[in-house]
Amino acid sequence: MSNSLIRNGMSLPNMPWEEPPKQGRKEVLWRYSGNPVIRRDATARSNSIFNSAVVPFNGAFAGVFRCDDTARRMNIHAGFSQDGINWKIEDEPIQFIKTDPELPDSEYKYDPRVIFIEDRYYIMWCNGYHGASIGLGYTFDFKKFYQMENPLMPYNRNGVLFPRKIGKNYAMLSRPSDSGHTPFGDIFYSESPDLVYWGKHRHVMGPLGSESPWQSTKIGAGPVPIETSEGWLLIYHGVLTSCNGFVYSFSAALLDLEKPWKVIARARPYLLSPQRDYECVGDVPNVTFPCAALVDKDTGRLAIYYGCADTVTGLAFGKIDEVVRFVLDNRL
Amino acid sequence: MSNSLIRNGMSLPNMPWEEPPKQGRKEVLWRYSGNPVIRRDATARSNSIFNSAVVPFNGAFAGVFRCDDTARRMNIHAGFSQDGINWKIEDEPIQFIKTDPELPDSEYKYDPRVIFIEDRYYIMWCNGYHGASIGLGYTFDFKKFYQMENPLMPYNRNGVLFPRKIGKNYAMLSRPSDSGHTPFGDIFYSESPDLVYWGKHRHVMGPLGSESPWQSTKIGAGPVPIETSEGWLLIYHGVLTSCNGFVYSFSAALLDLEKPWKVIARARPYLLSPQRDYECVGDVPNVTFPCAALVDKDTGRLAIYYGCADTVTGLAFGKIDEVVRFVLDNRL
Amino acid sequence: MSNSLIRNGMSLPNMPWEEPPKQGRKEVLWRYSGNPVIRRDATARSNSIFNSAVVPFNGAFAGVFRCDDTARRMNIHAGFSQDGINWKIEDEPIQFIKTDPELPDSEYKYDPRVIFIEDRYYIMWCNGYHGASIGLGYTFDFKKFYQMENPLMPYNRNGVLFPRKIGKNYAMLSRPSDSGHTPFGDIFYSESPDLVYWGKHRHVMGPLGSESPWQSTKIGAGPVPIETSEGWLLIYHGVLTSCNGFVYSFSAALLDLEKPWKVIARARPYLLSPQRDYECVGDVPNVTFPCAALVDKDTGRLAIYYGCADTVTGLAFGKIDEVVRFVLDNRL
Amino acid sequence: MSNSLIRNGMSLPNMPWEEPPKQGRKEVLWRYSGNPVIRRDATARSNSIFNSAVVPFNGAFAGVFRCDDTARRMNIHAGFSQDGINWKIEDEPIQFIKTDPELPDSEYKYDPRVIFIEDRYYIMWCNGYHGASIGLGYTFDFKKFYQMENPLMPYNRNGVLFPRKIGKNYAMLSRPSDSGHTPFGDIFYSESPDLVYWGKHRHVMGPLGSESPWQSTKIGAGPVPIETSEGWLLIYHGVLTSCNGFVYSFSAALLDLEKPWKVIARARPYLLSPQRDYECVGDVPNVTFPCAALVDKDTGRLAIYYGCADTVTGLAFGKIDEVVRFVLDNRL
Amino acid sequence: MSNSLIRNGMSLPNMPWEEPPKQGRKEVLWRYSGNPVIRRDATARSNSIFNSAVVPFNGAFAGVFRCDDTARRMNIHAGFSQDGINWKIEDEPIQFIKTDPELPDSEYKYDPRVIFIEDRYYIMWCNGYHGASIGLGYTFDFKKFYQMENPLMPYNRNGVLFPRKIGKNYAMLSRPSDSGHTPFGDIFYSESPDLVYWGKHRHVMGPLGSESPWQSTKIGAGPVPIETSEGWLLIYHGVLTSCNGFVYSFSAALLDLEKPWKVIARARPYLLSPQRDYECVGDVPNVTFPCAALVDKDTGRLAIYYGCADTVTGLAFGKIDEVVRFVLDNRL
Amino acid sequence: MSNSLIRNGMSLPNMPWEEPPKQGRKEVLWRYSGNPVIRRDATARSNSIFNSAVVPFNGAFAGVFRCDDTARRMNIHAGFSQDGINWKIEDEPIQFIKTDPELPDSEYKYDPRVIFIEDRYYIMWCNGYHGASIGLGYTFDFKKFYQMENPLMPYNRNGVLFPRKIGKNYAMLSRPSDSGHTPFGDIFYSESPDLVYWGKHRHVMGPLGSESPWQSTKIGAGPVPIETSEGWLLIYHGVLTSCNGFVYSFSAALLDLEKPWKVIARARPYLLSPQRDYECVGDVPNVTFPCAALVDKDTGRLAIYYGCADTVTGLAFGKIDEVVRFVLDNRL
Repeated sequence: MSNSLIRNGMSLPNMPWEEPPKQGRKEVLWRYSGNPVIRRDATARSNSIFNSAVVPFNGAFAGVFRCDDTARRMNIHAGFSQDGINWKIEDEPIQFIKTDPELPDSEYKYDPRVIFIEDRYYIMWCNGYHGASIGLGYTFDFKKFYQMENPLMPYNRNGVLFPRKIGKNYAMLSRPSDSGHTPFGDIFYSESPDLVYWGKHRHVMGPLGSESPWQSTKIGAGPVPIETSEGWLLIYHGVLTSCNGFVYSFSAALLDLEKPWKVIARARPYLLSPQRDYECVGDVPNVTFPCAALVDKDTGRLAIYYGCADTVTGLAFGKIDEVVRFVLDNRL
Repeated sequence: MSNSLIRNGMSLPNMPWEEPPKQGRKEVLWRYSGNPVIRRDATARSNSIFNSAVVPFNGAFAGVFRCDDTARRMNIHAGFSQDGINWKIEDEPIQFIKTDPELPDSEYKYDPRVIFIEDRYYIMWCNGYHGASIGLGYTFDFKKFYQMENPLMPYNRNGVLFPRKIGKNYAMLSRPSDSGHTPFGDIFYSESPDLVYWGKHRHVMGPLGSESPWQSTKIGAGPVPIETSEGWLLIYHGVLTSCNGFVYSFSAALLDLEKPWKVIARARPYLLSPQRDYECVGDVPNVTFPCAALVDKDTGRLAIYYGCADTVTGLAFGKIDEVVRFVLDNRL
Repeated sequence: MSNSLIRNGMSLPNMPWEEPPKQGRKEVLWRYSGNPVIRRDATARSNSIFNSAVVPFNGAFAGVFRCDDTARRMNIHAGFSQDGINWKIEDEPIQFIKTDPELPDSEYKYDPRVIFIEDRYYIMWCNGYHGASIGLGYTFDFKKFYQMENPLMPYNRNGVLFPRKIGKNYAMLSRPSDSGHTPFGDIFYSESPDLVYWGKHRHVMGPLGSESPWQSTKIGAGPVPIETSEGWLLIYHGVLTSCNGFVYSFSAALLDLEKPWKVIARARPYLLSPQRDYECVGDVPNVTFPCAALVDKDTGRLAIYYGCADTVTGLAFGKIDEVVRFVLDNRL
Repeated sequence: MSNSLIRNGMSLPNMPWEEPPKQGRKEVLWRYSGNPVIRRDATARSNSIFNSAVVPFNGAFAGVFRCDDTARRMNIHAGFSQDGINWKIEDEPIQFIKTDPELPDSEYKYDPRVIFIEDRYYIMWCNGYHGASIGLGYTFDFKKFYQMENPLMPYNRNGVLFPRKIGKNYAMLSRPSDSGHTPFGDIFYSESPDLVYWGKHRHVMGPLGSESPWQSTKIGAGPVPIETSEGWLLIYHGVLTSCNGFVYSFSAALLDLEKPWKVIARARPYLLSPQRDYECVGDVPNVTFPCAALVDKDTGRLAIYYGCADTVTGLAFGKIDEVVRFVLDNRL
Repeated sequence: MSNSLIRNGMSLPNMPWEEPPKQGRKEVLWRYSGNPVIRRDATARSNSIFNSAVVPFNGAFAGVFRCDDTARRMNIHAGFSQDGINWKIEDEPIQFIKTDPELPDSEYKYDPRVIFIEDRYYIMWCNGYHGASIGLGYTFDFKKFYQMENPLMPYNRNGVLFPRKIGKNYAMLSRPSDSGHTPFGDIFYSESPDLVYWGKHRHVMGPLGSESPWQSTKIGAGPVPIETSEGWLLIYHGVLTSCNGFVYSFSAALLDLEKPWKVIARARPYLLSPQRDYECVGDVPNVTFPCAALVDKDTGRLAIYYGCADTVTGLAFGKIDEVVRFVLDNRL
Repeated sequence: MSNSLIRNGMSLPNMPWEEPPKQGRKEVLWRYSGNPVIRRDATARSNSIFNSAVVPFNGAFAGVFRCDDTARRMNIHAGFSQDGINWKIEDEPIQFIKTDPELPDSEYKYDPRVIFIEDRYYIMWCNGYHGASIGLGYTFDFKKFYQMENPLMPYNRNGVLFPRKIGKNYAMLSRPSDSGHTPFGDIFYSESPDLVYWGKHRHVMGPLGSESPWQSTKIGAGPVPIETSEGWLLIYHGVLTSCNGFVYSFSAALLDLEKPWKVIARARPYLLSPQRDYECVGDVPNVTFPCAALVDKDTGRLAIYYGCADTVTGLAFGKIDEVVRFVLDNRL
């Protein structure tokens, strides 16, 4: 298996990268030595910046960042970087232009994902509309942003578009939820001919029991799935409920390329769990929550941006072929 | 205001009917003197028959009935009646023919509604698919039943189609839920061009506080909305949480004919609450849960079938104009 | 021990009365054969009438009644009776005149008690002010009612004044609570020189364990304490939590006449528990909740009005000397 | 299959019996027409009499009865009957003589079972010792009762001895619990060479999901297992959690004669569920809880004593061969 | 606006002070560089020292400190300092002299506040008396302490006296609670002519929703209010409930000088939230809880003592005029 | 009192040891300066290594270690050390040989204890068998391990054998639990003639209230009890429930040598609580959980191995005589 397994990828020679550390146990993913890559006070009024989405843009990088302000209100902000490491994030949240004046207002926004499809960048986020819903919008330039209809009803979180149509339809993963700190959660798949009307919902996978406790309470899609010859590589988070609360780790699975609700392989162990101080200590202790991944098709390099303790943003590196191999070798 | 307020109704001279009782406080709805109209053991293996849907059919009546069996498994059965009072319910549950072999199986079915649109009878129900979802199917003859895609994702209950398209789209009310005995619940509106893909979700209304405690925990659509000159008459249930559990009552609201997510008027008091022994005592005490209504456009007579204590089926009578007047006079 | 143990009582030859039933196990309290003495629909729009207070008035009887309306809003209404059995209850709730325009509004009112002190009838109730509080007001004629300051802060319920000053101060029992269906509750005692400012709070008694499970979750004062030579006779309710909810029974204790926070004796068994259909079936199953007592000092006859299943009002009879004897003989 | 399937049974020509009712749906078990066979006030101070155990004794019948007193304290009382219908129950609870002075005291006792093994009648009950435990004792004459060591640790309920040794050891079923109204519960099997020390614990069966919801929360052994040629016939209760609380129904399973932790067949439907007023209304609504069975080996007649609504005792009849057939025909 | 806005203040030239740090984002409050100013083991047997009160005393400083011992028992201790930084805290808790022998004992004491009124220092604390209550006492010299009646009933916490009478009465803020880790909480206002009897309770403010989530679960008064020309400056804590527990931050509001239950302005953002290790890690992670403030009327300097992670004591600095301006500029 | 108080001890001149630190408050127990003594990634695939058991073995040390893997599966591994500080832990979990092929499988294993009795090393652990149970096995050489019958039924944790028979029987402490993160827990004592059948269960001690809050939620035995002339020295953990979860500390008690269910003395303060970063931060914050102790009878030196934050293993030192003195001097 070589990096030729990446499909429809792009060359990203300037993506952030570090070789793995030479000491300590060898891991499939390793953390950036300068973590947290984005600190909690990187904008004028932010309490925390985490669970954020990054994409290649104009030869550099752009992103949509979850910035909670010092009232702890949740919102998403645009940001830009030449190297994916040093970021300039807007002090003001994104103001979406409604594509239809009847579109309902958004009470809050959080946990964005971004993906380029066809001619524009689509943004998905958790959108406050009588509860947590999936929000959807797009931008061409990360300056003007347009809001579309919510694709699915509340209560739902972790909506993630596939980077291309599956068959004739757009496709999305999401995680139906409840009105609070949901203690359950499975990943579902939905289709749409037009990004407005959605249907053909299929169950993809749910939490596990004692065979893989790190994902025993709930799971949710992370970054936009990465197309490989072995299937869609889905990096996803899972939650374990300890006597002192939730612990968010993440790992990966491979989904069928044409019927992505069929799971080809799913890793039993996590790839990364909260172990560093900035992952264990913060507004919500013990959270590592991936929302974006950069992949260079030439080298197979992978960079994952993940929220840390709901407070700062971390960056981890790996190789696509090693991650795919990890999933296949450690499948349940 | 006369019964001419009914729109698109049909003549139902043979619908069940009783005049209101002459003694006691005058109420807008009154119960059938022979209640429960369907007993718990009316089929060979039923534990209970309740929360069931009735429509005019071939000059008589047909219905889809929730029959829990003596293992307490939930399923729906077809039934027939000449007078809407005396019912012959099939001993075996409906076996749906899948319109697409990829359609997922149903783990259980309950709380059906039925409505004739265009050329066929559509059945909606709560469909077990990794949690409570909205199920959708149709029949032409109440003999063969066809199952379609679930219109919305779990967790959802109380899906009710409108009896005609709104604008260019089919329209449905539903009540997003959680994976258990949901302690919250608002009514939402969704649209579909083809009954497969759904979107343009809008919030219709939610529970209330101390101004109307009978509907303070959650609410959900009951029978298919009835079109009147004053708006869609929506009979819906509401739940109050006492120290000893949920109490299900029901009342009515008027929704805008073209934008049904806009509430014209909503009654503060209930129309009917659990007060009789067969409503207060049973598998779930204190439940009155309406799922179907018959209306005669000539007389404005209204007959509501409602589940009682999750055990038997009750029947109540009223007049459309008086119910509409009640909503307008007692609006919040 | 004779009925001469009643202190400061009044003659009530016209109070309601029935001799105990001749068959069945002899009980210290027995129910009125015409129970429920007040039905749920005794006013124009009542859902239920229960937990209500009755006093001698002008040679007959007056009362303040909890009437929940058909929106399930809680309020209190005045009512009148010649015999304490047949009641005429006002259709409209009491409109209190504020004794100070700065007095906050009441969001709801329930569970009243009434007592004549010095020159007027004082009404206490559970008063909605940012949660359940004790409300206080008075009337001279049961036509005009005046509202005073809430004596104690939320969250509190079951406030009951003593019928005379203790030492130099007015005195009240109450039951601090939380913002919901409180799962705990002790009776406390407070004093006031002027019915406006309150202090010197003392713990009186709390729930018990396996030695008396009917009162193991919470307890609360019922009718205004009755002065006897053996101490204040306090009839109070207690709650047991079964796997299917709360069960409200009631019994009695004797409190020190001068230091009423000192318990002289407290009965281990209940005097009355929910056993009849109208006590077990209703809006809240399994509730018997006493709020008022009539006593004839000449005969020692006792009539207790108690709410049944939060739906209707019951009446039970006994003799003061037998109840006092029961408390002393069955003390914990 | 004939009644010759009963093994090691005894002739009980005087056991209570009624033929099944001629109208209504035919059921495998039918209720005694004079139910409740024991009323709540059948002793001098009982609040309720239910969940009780009956055995043949001296040509007539004796039993151990759960009698909660009017303080709602739980205890067990001896009782006697000529016909199994009309019972004389002692007003005072059983006073056990400790077989060892070091034996800990019992805080409360409830839900007894009784069985004759070898030379004496053994009584098992739920014994309060720092939580619910299994209690064990014996009597020769239902006058003097002796208490042994608790066989198992808290928290445990529904301990039931087999009527003979299995292999070389005594054997018991029980249901490990928690310290409250346990929301889970499986049946386990344990062995003992001497009724003092216990081990070799084996899981027998647990609750089920949507394939048999009446037993989806917890299950527990009911009467002492009945030996048949098809296996041990175990009548057991199961609990469903509705939005308004627990519902206790019961049915039956067949266990391997020599390795009783192996389930031969288990019925999907219940045999009897709370449907009559005395089963649905009472101190705990919706409970039918079997604790004892009489069997006549000559006729195969079966009489089951079961607690109703935690308030009174019911009696139901059936035929052993039909019950065994029901289990085999309706197995999961 | 100048520091002349301080009313009735005193000169405190020796109060602790540091200029704001020169790097990092400018904040209205900044932490003392030597934090934690009091460590957890500063007395002989303390597990933790936090949530403590400090006042000017005899030209230096005295205080009352919450010191939990190594059994985790909660109590309050006196302490002294020349500079407000270096403290000598007594190893033994304060022994209060009862002003009335009938005063009930205190089961535990925590979260003190101290204020000088008229001729003495009043101490308020959370006082264990059948649940959390407000305790009240006084001292002239921080050597002898006198305990008065509890002003309010359980369950209540965070009682804070105003530093002068409002109108003719003493005034107190408090936060009614429940018997556990209360998940709700509003600030109320009460008055007393004599510090014994209290009444005229008024609601001041409650938690907020998505407009200010840091204070969405409950709020409570912090230090004694500071009188300014713009109103009473109330520094108060607020709690957000994350999936991993409570987060305690604090900010400020301005209350009407004569009717302090009327809120003039309330800041939407927090002033300080748990961000440093000693605030995020400890016996209760993520707590910053202010209990005392020193103000120098000449410079407007403000020093706030706040508990950190329920383990140690922190110190933060600011300027009164900037804090007042922050409240006015960021009002909800 | 001298170290001669150790009974049946052994010489361990090579046990790990450090003198107490010279600065800071003097404590009875002090931490190893190289803590954590075992890091989370000390085996090839461990997520964490904690709550582990160590014994003298062949002149050096062996142990059984809880190693959760990176799927967060719980298992126990053998390990070896020359000095008790530097450990070589097996990468693979222990594979037990069943002493009887009928023995049920183990779903997971955690929290081991080890003790040498008579001729072999017995291992106890929490054994997954339809819930948490006590597992029991033995080894002669830490290479081959044999699994025996589970001594007690689920749900139980913290099973600890005494190091010799008490009277004629083996003896064990355990802590009955529920099926989740148990919020209660008392220590019980059980006996067995043969390590297969267990009985004579006795309550030893339970949680405490406000007199010792660190042990107010639940308690459980830690290392195998240490025999002294003053009684069995039992080091045990206790749990306090803060608003942000459980806090696990530990202390000690003395049990009667012949009737170990009788408590001679129990310390009010803890000996050690989570205070260092590695105890406060990790997979479960705020846990110190002792599972093993080494004692040198010549010097009285004590080394306690304890799990830290459910992530790493800590080591603490003390002297037996000082710990016994601490218990006696600080008894409740």
